Amino acid sequence: MPGRIIEECTFTHRQVPGPVSKKAVEKLNPVWDSRAVYFVVDYAKSHDNFIVDVDGNEFLDVYSQIASIPVGYNNARLIEAAKSPQMILALVNRPAVGNFPGENWLTQLKDGLLRVAPKGHNKVFTAQSGSEANELAYKAAFMRYRRRQRGEGVEWTQEEIDSCMNNAAPGSPDLAILSFKNSFHGRGFGSLSTTRSKAVHKLDIPAFNWPQAPFPALKYPLEDNVEANKAEEEACLKKVEELITSWHCPVAAVIVEPIQSEGGDNHASPAFFQGLRKITQEHDVMLIADEVQTGFGATGKFWGHEHWNLASPPDMVTFSKKAQTAGYFFGDDQLTPDKAYRQFNTWIGDPARIIMSNAVISEILDNKLVEHTAQVGDKLYAALEKLATKYPDNIQNLRGKGNGTYIAFDTENPAALVGKMRSFGVNIGTCGTRTVRLRPMLVFEEGHIPRLVETFERALTGGADGSK
Amino acid sequence: MPGRIIEECTFTHRQVPGPVSKKAVEKLNPVWDSRAVYFVVDYAKSHDNFIVDVDGNEFLDVYSQIASIPVGYNNARLIEAAKSPQMILALVNRPAVGNFPGENWLTQLKDGLLRVAPKGHNKVFTAQSGSEANELAYKAAFMRYRRRQRGEGVEWTQEEIDSCMNNAAPGSPDLAILSFKNSFHGRGFGSLSTTRSKAVHKLDIPAFNWPQAPFPALKYPLEDNVEANKAEEEACLKKVEELITSWHCPVAAVIVEPIQSEGGDNHASPAFFQGLRKITQEHDVMLIADEVQTGFGATGKFWGHEHWNLASPPDMVTFSKKAQTAGYFFGDDQLTPDKAYRQFNTWIGDPARIIMSNAVISEILDNKLVEHTAQVGDKLYAALEKLATKYPDNIQNLRGKGNGTYIAFDTENPAALVGKMRSFGVNIGTCGTRTVRLRPMLVFEEGHIPRLVETFERALTGGADGSK
Repeated sequence: MPGRIIEECTFTHRQVPGPVSKKAVEKLNPVWDSRAVYFVVDYAKSHDNFIVDVDGNEFLDVYSQIASIPVGYNNARLIEAAKSPQMILALVNRPAVGNFPGENWLTQLKDGLLRVAPKGHNKVFTAQSGSEANELAYKAAFMRYRRRQRGEGVEWTQEEIDSCMNNAAPGSPDLAILSFKNSFHGRGFGSLSTTRSKAVHKLDIPAFNWPQAPFPALKYPLEDNVEANKAEEEACLKKVEELITSWHCPVAAVIVEPIQSEGGDNHASPAFFQGLRKITQEHDVMLIADEVQTGFGATGKFWGHEHWNLASPPDMVTFSKKAQTAGYFFGDDQLTPDKAYRQFNTWIGDPARIIMSNAVISEILDNKLVEHTAQVGDKLYAALEKLATKYPDNIQNLRGKGNGTYIAFDTENPAALVGKMRSFGVNIGTCGTRTVRLRPMLVFEEGHIPRLVETFERALTGGADGSK
Repeated sequence: MPGRIIEECTFTHRQVPGPVSKKAVEKLNPVWDSRAVYFVVDYAKSHDNFIVDVDGNEFLDVYSQIASIPVGYNNARLIEAAKSPQMILALVNRPAVGNFPGENWLTQLKDGLLRVAPKGHNKVFTAQSGSEANELAYKAAFMRYRRRQRGEGVEWTQEEIDSCMNNAAPGSPDLAILSFKNSFHGRGFGSLSTTRSKAVHKLDIPAFNWPQAPFPALKYPLEDNVEANKAEEEACLKKVEELITSWHCPVAAVIVEPIQSEGGDNHASPAFFQGLRKITQEHDVMLIADEVQTGFGATGKFWGHEHWNLASPPDMVTFSKKAQTAGYFFGDDQLTPDKAYRQFNTWIGDPARIIMSNAVISEILDNKLVEHTAQVGDKLYAALEKLATKYPDNIQNLRGKGNGTYIAFDTENPAALVGKMRSFGVNIGTCGTRTVRLRPMLVFEEGHIPRLVETFERALTGGADGSK
C-alpha cells in the first residue's frame, strides 16, 4: 500500500552536496577537475545498498558508481579478498603479466574469470577499462581481417612493414568498425570513434571515418506497437547491411550494446540481434557485444546478450564496471594474433582487480544474485508501471520489463528529478537526453522497492527544490 | 677486482624457463595468450632486487617488470600500505571518482601524487595506463587548440555539435600530434598513431595521418663526436619545425620521451630538448614529456626532463610504470576542458593504485633513492665502461652516463645475450633492434654491480647455450 509506506518513510530534505562536501570540492578542484562531483563519500560508513556522504547523509544507491558496484558497499567477501595474502602480493609486486605472470595467474583466469565466460568463449584477454577492452577487441578484429585477407601463414610484406611505420596503407590499412547511433563504447581515440552518444564526449577530438547505423527507436508500450517496432528494426538491419557492403573501406567488426546505456537505455528485440548476427556472419564481420554496463547480472541474466537467444554467440564480449576489472572474452583462435607481442602492454590488466573480480563472481554465483535480480526486477518493474499509470506525463516510455533491474523511463527534466531524489535520500542517475536510469546493485532487495517508488512519487509531486 | 669476483660468483646454469614454468605456460596458453612469457614467478619468494621463479631459480632483476617495479619486491612499506584500512576501502568500494570521490581523494592527490609534480605543474589528471595517460594528454591538447581557435568563452556551433557525431569536421577536426621516429607512446588507437618503434605494434591497425620527425641518432662516445652530434640534433629540430609549419593540418602537440626507451634507449642532449621547447613555444604547440618509463627516479633525477634544464617546463608530463598508477601532470588552466565531463570516464584511475603510488613516493623521498640511484648509476656506468673496453665488439655505443642506472649498449644479438644472462641468474631486457637495456630498481646497490658485470662477462665469453 503506497499510502502507508509514504507515511512511514522520512523525507527529510538534505542539502546535496552538503557543506562538508562542498568545502572538500573547493579544495580538490584546483588540483583535480572536480566539476562533475555530486558529493564526497564516506566509504567506511557506506554499506550494502547505501552510500553515505561526508555530511552524514545516507542514500539508497541505485546508481552504484555509474553501474559499477556489483554486490554492495563493504561486502564481507570482498573485504576478505582484499585482506588475502594473494592480494598483498598482487598489490606490492605489480607484475608485467605478459612476460612474468605469477603462479596464481592461471587459477585467477581459468578457475576465475572463465567461470562466467559467455557460451562459446573459452579465452580471455585482460585489460584495465571498458574503453581499453573495446579497443583491444577492435585490434583483434583488424588483425584477423588482414590475416584472412593475406592468407593463413603468409608473411608480412616489406611494404606493409615500412608503410605502417608511417601510418600509411597497406601496413596501416583503412578498415572500419561499425557502431550504432546513440551508442557509447568509450573515450580512447578508437573507442571514441565508435561512441555516438553526446557531443561533449566527442567534440574537438580527431576521429576515424567509420560508419554509424541507426539503432531501433522502439515505441512503448511494446505490446501496442508490435508492427511499427518490427518495421523499425528491419529498417535498421537493412541499413547495417547497406553500410557494410557500401562503406568506402571494409568493415571488420560491428559493436553493439545489448541495451544502449549511456545513450538513453535504448532496447531492441532478440529478433533484431538475431538479424545482426545473421548479417555479420554472412559478410564475415566480427560481432562484438559491448557488455561493459550490461554484463554481470543486472539484466536478470549474467550477460545481456543471453536475452538474444542466438544460435551462435557474438565473436567477442567485452566487460568492465561490475566485473571490477576489464577485458574481453572470445572463442575463435583466429582472434589470437598471428605473432606474440601484438596484443600486449606492460601490465595487461591488474591481478589485484582480478582477485576482486573473482570474489564478486563467487558472491554472485553462491547467492544466485542473477536469479535474485531477475525476480526483484520484475517486482520493481511492476511497481514502476503502477506509478507510470498514475503519472503518465512524468514517467514515459517505461522500459526494461524482463530485464532484471535494468529499468529506465523518460521524463521532461531528468536532471531536476534526480536532484530531487538525491535531496530525499536516493542516489540515482540519468542517461541520454531525457532518461532516468535505474542501476541498483545485484543485492537490491524487494524491501527497498517501497522507499524507491515512494521517493519517486514525492519527488514528482514535491516542490522545485524537493522540500515539499 | 673482476677476477676475484668471478671466482666468488656461482654461475650455475639454469634452464629458463624451467620445467614447472613450462608446464604452467602449457596450461595457461589455451585460455590466455602466453607466447611472451619468460617464466612464471613465485612472487611470495621474490624479494628486493631478486625475482624467484616457480622452479626455484633466483635472478638478480635488472628488468624489473619492464621497468615498472620501483622499490624492490615485497618492500615493507608497500606491504604496510597494501594492508592499510584505506586500501581495503579502495579495493572493496571502487569509486567512480569523477562523481563520487572518497574523503581521502584530496589527500591522496594533494599530499600524495602532487608531492612529486614536475616544476611548474600543480594539477594532475589520473588514468590507468601509460597509453591512456598519453591519450588524455592528446585530448587536452586538442581541446585547448580548438578552444583558442574558437575564442575564449565562444560556444560550440550547431555545425560542430552535429558533425562530431558523424566523426566529421569541423566537430571532429583534422588535428595532429607530432612524435619522433623510434618513439613508443602506447597501444591505443591515438597513442599507437604516435608510436613509431616496431611494425609488430602497428601493423594491420588503422592509424591517424600524423607526422613523425627524425630523432637524433647520436654517435658514441659523445666526447669524440661533438660536432657531428650537434649537427644531427639541429637537423632534427629543423625537420620538427618544417613539419609543424607544413603538415596538412595543425599540429596541436609534440610528444617526446626524455630517453627513447622501447625504441632503443636513444638519447639526445639538453640543447636538443631546449630547442624543441623553443620551437613548440614559438608555434604555440603543446610539449608533452612522456615519462612513462623515465619518470620516478631511474635517470638519477626524479623526472627525466629535469636533465633538460629548461627555462619553462613541458606543458604536460605523463607517468605510469614505477608510479604504479598513471596519469599526467600539467600547470596551464587552458588544459582543463571548457566544460565538465569532457575528460571523464567511469573510474578515472584507481585509488587502490594511488595508495601504492604514495607509498612508493614516500619510500623514494625518505630514503633519497633518486640521489642513491644517481650515485650507484655512476659506478655501474664506470664498471660497464671498463667491460666495454675489454669487449668492444660485443658492447657498443654504451650510453646513459650521468643518467643514473638508465644505461644501455648495443650488441649484435641482444636476445641471445639476455637469454644467456637469464640462464646465469640475471633477468635483463632488450629494446630497439640491437640494444640491451638496464632497468634496475631504485634499490639497486653498489654491491650488486660485480654480479651483474661478471655475469655479462661470463655470458659474452660463454658458449652459445650459456652453459660454459
